[in-house]
Amino acid sequence: MNNFFLKGNICHTPEIGKLETFENSYLLCENGKCNGIFADIPEKYSSYPVQDTNGSLIIPGMVDLHIHAPQYAFRGLGMDCELLDWLDRHAFPEETKYSDPDYAQKAYSIFASDLKKSATTRAVIFATRHSQATIQLMDLMEKTGLVSFVGKVNMDREAPEALKEENADSSAADTVRYITKAFERNYKNTYPIITPRFIPSCTDSLMEKLSEIRRKYNLPVQSHLSENLGEVELVKKLKPDALFYGDAYDSFGLFGKESNTVMAHCVHSTDAEIERMKENGVWVAHCPDSNMNVSSGVAPIRKYIDKGLRIGLGTDVAGGHTQSMFRAIVASLQVSKLYWRLIDQSVKHLSFSESFYMATKGGGSFFGKVGSFEKGYEFDALVLDDSVRPHPQEISVSQRLERAVYLGIDLDGIKEKYIRGIKCI
Amino acid sequence: MNNFFLKGNICHTPEIGKLETFENSYLLCENGKCNGIFADIPEKYSSYPVQDTNGSLIIPGMVDLHIHAPQYAFRGLGMDCELLDWLDRHAFPEETKYSDPDYAQKAYSIFASDLKKSATTRAVIFATRHSQATIQLMDLMEKTGLVSFVGKVNMDREAPEALKEENADSSAADTVRYITKAFERNYKNTYPIITPRFIPSCTDSLMEKLSEIRRKYNLPVQSHLSENLGEVELVKKLKPDALFYGDAYDSFGLFGKESNTVMAHCVHSTDAEIERMKENGVWVAHCPDSNMNVSSGVAPIRKYIDKGLRIGLGTDVAGGHTQSMFRAIVASLQVSKLYWRLIDQSVKHLSFSESFYMATKGGGSFFGKVGSFEKGYEFDALVLDDSVRPHPQEISVSQRLERAVYLGIDLDGIKEKYIRGIKCI
Repeated sequence: MNNFFLKGNICHTPEIGKLETFENSYLLCENGKCNGIFADIPEKYSSYPVQDTNGSLIIPGMVDLHIHAPQYAFRGLGMDCELLDWLDRHAFPEETKYSDPDYAQKAYSIFASDLKKSATTRAVIFATRHSQATIQLMDLMEKTGLVSFVGKVNMDREAPEALKEENADSSAADTVRYITKAFERNYKNTYPIITPRFIPSCTDSLMEKLSEIRRKYNLPVQSHLSENLGEVELVKKLKPDALFYGDAYDSFGLFGKESNTVMAHCVHSTDAEIERMKENGVWVAHCPDSNMNVSSGVAPIRKYIDKGLRIGLGTDVAGGHTQSMFRAIVASLQVSKLYWRLIDQSVKHLSFSESFYMATKGGGSFFGKVGSFEKGYEFDALVLDDSVRPHPQEISVSQRLERAVYLGIDLDGIKEKYIRGIKCI
Repeated sequence: MNNFFLKGNICHTPEIGKLETFENSYLLCENGKCNGIFADIPEKYSSYPVQDTNGSLIIPGMVDLHIHAPQYAFRGLGMDCELLDWLDRHAFPEETKYSDPDYAQKAYSIFASDLKKSATTRAVIFATRHSQATIQLMDLMEKTGLVSFVGKVNMDREAPEALKEENADSSAADTVRYITKAFERNYKNTYPIITPRFIPSCTDSLMEKLSEIRRKYNLPVQSHLSENLGEVELVKKLKPDALFYGDAYDSFGLFGKESNTVMAHCVHSTDAEIERMKENGVWVAHCPDSNMNVSSGVAPIRKYIDKGLRIGLGTDVAGGHTQSMFRAIVASLQVSKLYWRLIDQSVKHLSFSESFYMATKGGGSFFGKVGSFEKGYEFDALVLDDSVRPHPQEISVSQRLERAVYLGIDLDGIKEKYIRGIKCI
């Protein structure tokens, strides 16, 4: 049994837009789950050890709903083109290198090590199309203590020869190989996920096979959706029968409903697509930095919130230039203000507590009861020492949180990190 | 005499958009000025000491053309409102505290200490309307080794009683007091600058007096221009005779021509205003993070570049949430892409080397021959250890620079900092 209290200034958002703070309080972990926040330790728990953070902030771990591990190597590089050119010039050439296990080990070790140090406690990860390198990545992720879904990418068309898979059969067979290997490894925290790169990269035949594999192993799904206008046009050309981009996934049973499905971006989703996402319970991974960096635009997140869609944040390295989820929160606020100013002044910008919710409980729901300190939620917590950025006067706990996020203290202010009640930093 | 070589991977932008790199080369400092970049040390300089940076990047120091020192205390807080409300709720209440010398000393000490550690080597700074606290700030800035203009703010209307100056006469008298004190201090690196807060805060009578003072002491000018639509409307109401916002400054001789003048923001400048800035040689301080945070919009920087305006970057703390000039470069690229995507697809987004130029030589020109390693330029240099973010393979020097900026290594990767040839970190 792993029972203890964390003492400090506790913040979480049990509802979107509703930030709750508890000054100098005690957060109870019982057997890996949250079991209450207390002003004083109740008698019956008096034997539990107390970890006093000395006034630090205690917040839920960050959930990164969309990140490409192999692209971590070139984050912050080649930011001068739009999505499709960027894939050709930067992403595809880099991903080709992961056929080499030595390179994969070297590059993925840096990724895993940095993610461990970051504010992220859970992540939904794209690997490459290489099953062996993907298992290497899963081994490395398992060692970090983070909880993650790691997807071997499927792509049997519209890619350079060296990266493209031979055909739908070989792609499917390799996917089964990776899933089988992953299960054999008996990971505690690392799971496979069906990962068609996006509609342009996958033949219908491959999509059908992936759908079968998904059903057989009961796996979740991740992909990209309506990110960039050029991509949306390409999908129309490649799938003229689809009612809209998301309908192409849905026609193969790879768009929510019985499978937990996360779709990255959703910048240019039509009303019909939004409606389908709502009906099917698809998660939106909002990746604001990436949407700026590769000139995609600004996703209408306020609309998605109002419609009650499931939404989390993603860093989308390397369309996004950083793995920092604190930066993702700030970027989501910034682009929502430009959406208001430049696109539609009837649409209110996001508030800090709305974006904080997306980064925690919003994305966390993809993992179950995750991203909040409510009773029964998995105990994922960060202890933040915001004194790394001195301040001349007293400010409230909620102000300290906003400031810590805007000032990016996830780079140098994470004192402790717990996942499922286990300390991993 | 302070003569030496810095050895490393040297990068600068002598022209906008033209990044030059010199691998493993020698940058010569003679008596505080740059005097050449060499592949090998010429015989006649063989007696000069060599500081080998062991393969680090060597780049010009960053020039922050617009930052509010008193607002540093609340950066990253209160980001939920637009400019005019934000001034009333956050900026003005904080600035009122600087009537207390003890508070000013405490808060400004944090500001100066953090700016010293940052990538910034030169800054154009707003203080508050308090002359004593402004001198305290100048004393602190002088100790950092940075070169700065520090302005006592003028504001005799449209502000809370506790912050507003009594009248134009007292404001002018206090300005002369601060200028006189500043000159008496014989600072080497710290200069006064005429600083009407913005048109809404200054009566015509005050503007006339400031113009006289400016002429008498031959000082430069800083203020705000066409930042936010609400502000532009307010200026129209308060100065109905002005042809446009900038014309209001110009009518008092506080808009370029014989005085070096920097105007922050210029998000909503009309064609006539842009034309006048060009004619008068006004510098634009582009502050992209601030323009997002307080919902102002995106300045048309490509248009300003094409017209040949003088442009630099500003962090505009605390409309901007960080003093990081590397972040200002990234933000300028990001918003230029949204400008292209959301406003006008005939306008090409900025390139990395264009933004890097703005952050160095563009803003540096406000200080003279500053922001480049060309011969005769003042020797302001940063030595960057980009190995703080490990990378799995060799990349070129220009890629290392882009990556270092996107990854924000100004927080933890500045190994050395030189200003006018003097090492200050």
